[in-house]
Amino acid sequence: MVLVRARNPQNIGAVARAMHDFGFGDLRVVNEFAVPFEAARSAIDASAVLAAATQYGDVAAAVADCTLVVGTTAVGERALAHPLRALRDAAGMIRGAAAGGMDEAAGARVALLFGSEKTGLSNEELSFCHWLLTIPMQQHAELRHPSMNLGQAVAVCLYELVRDGSAAVDARVGEAAAAREVERLRELLTEVLEQTEYTRRHPANSGAEEVRRLVMRMGVSAVDAQVWMGVLRQVLWKLRRAAGGE
Amino acid sequence: MVLVRARNPQNIGAVARAMHDFGFGDLRVVNEFAVPFEAARSAIDASAVLAAATQYGDVAAAVADCTLVVGTTAVGERALAHPLRALRDAAGMIRGAAAGGMDEAAGARVALLFGSEKTGLSNEELSFCHWLLTIPMQQHAELRHPSMNLGQAVAVCLYELVRDGSAAVDARVGEAAAAREVERLRELLTEVLEQTEYTRRHPANSGAEEVRRLVMRMGVSAVDAQVWMGVLRQVLWKLRRAAGGE
Repeated sequence: MVLVRARNPQNIGAVARAMHDFGFGDLRVVNEFAVPFEAARSAIDASAVLAAATQYGDVAAAVADCTLVVGTTAVGERALAHPLRALRDAAGMIRGAAAGGMDEAAGARVALLFGSEKTGLSNEELSFCHWLLTIPMQQHAELRHPSMNLGQAVAVCLYELVRDGSAAVDARVGEAAAAREVERLRELLTEVLEQTEYTRRHPANSGAEEVRRLVMRMGVSAVDAQVWMGVLRQVLWKLRRAAGGE
Repeated sequence: MVLVRARNPQNIGAVARAMHDFGFGDLRVVNEFAVPFEAARSAIDASAVLAAATQYGDVAAAVADCTLVVGTTAVGERALAHPLRALRDAAGMIRGAAAGGMDEAAGARVALLFGSEKTGLSNEELSFCHWLLTIPMQQHAELRHPSMNLGQAVAVCLYELVRDGSAAVDARVGEAAAAREVERLRELLTEVLEQTEYTRRHPANSGAEEVRRLVMRMGVSAVDAQVWMGVLRQVLWKLRRAAGGE
């Protein structure tokens, strides 16, 4: 990650935090003046990234050891002399290059360049890039060139880079109830509908199939099925008790 | 987009800017105090989103007209009582719901909830959610629970929502119930649990949050919500009648 002429220490901190969040570590900053890392170090969770950040006087030095240099740009900002790819396609190519195809030793060192908040990358800076990527955004008629907040743009790019590699979160949807539990639930509900005279008032809703479909649409987990059965049994118990005159 | 207890006006501005960038417009803010929108209005390019933002006193009011409420959370923050989905899967489901399957009129009104920068969403706030999404991040050994900068998290989520442009569509059963109908259903169920003394026998299942989550997990359609309310009203009617000695 190479930040060129970033001006706002808060933005540098936000970039470092996004790198931390998505597991990236090599932050390089290109500035003519000493970067106020101190101000950026307040960024939560980003201290390790900031502590390891390195500073360069120009883009050439910052990307010297990289084998693939990708610039970022807002579309329409200027006449582009470079191939331009949308982020999702660009991310695939970057991952492919970094993986080095079949040969791990051939894995590219990829630099991702972000320009200053105000002006983006200059033509001279862009000239170090193999190609450019852009984050597709909503076009607003009133604006000449949309551009994202630097920290947000970096977060979106890094998210896309790890998007397909990140182990899917295990879907903690509860284990579904077995059909026999669903059927038991339907029987109990049917009993409640009868005992409460719902079946007389709404016969169209009360057929065995209607009630089963209603229960199926609940999509209950095994745990919730037990809870609902408990609720219905309690209703039946209370009805019997109330009818007994207590 | 619903921001719950966001504290930092700059973050609210960053959220508005990301919404502008990706073409979203309905920002709702839930806070007990007047939100300092003025401070947030400095956010570049976000003035239209901020001008149209609305403020609510609680989550229930903010999501009352929504048919799908999705909370955001950092994994491991707490024991989750909700289904949890990784952003890329969650985005597909949200797009599917918003597209409403074959029937455009049935498109869901989706609320995406973000909690405060410090504490995320409370259990009570989470209980209004149908399910949760999380942005997969790098696990760092030294941290109990990673969490992203609010503006960056929103940018990443909205990017993923518009990433594929054309919405994937899953089949839907019927128009989902609005949050206010679900809340009415919860109230009726609570009344049944009290009248039948279920609350005394199973207090752990009977708290307002537990009951709301149970009802949310039913994922009822607008039609089924009416059917279930009819069933519960009939139970209450019968209980009163039986208690009356008839």
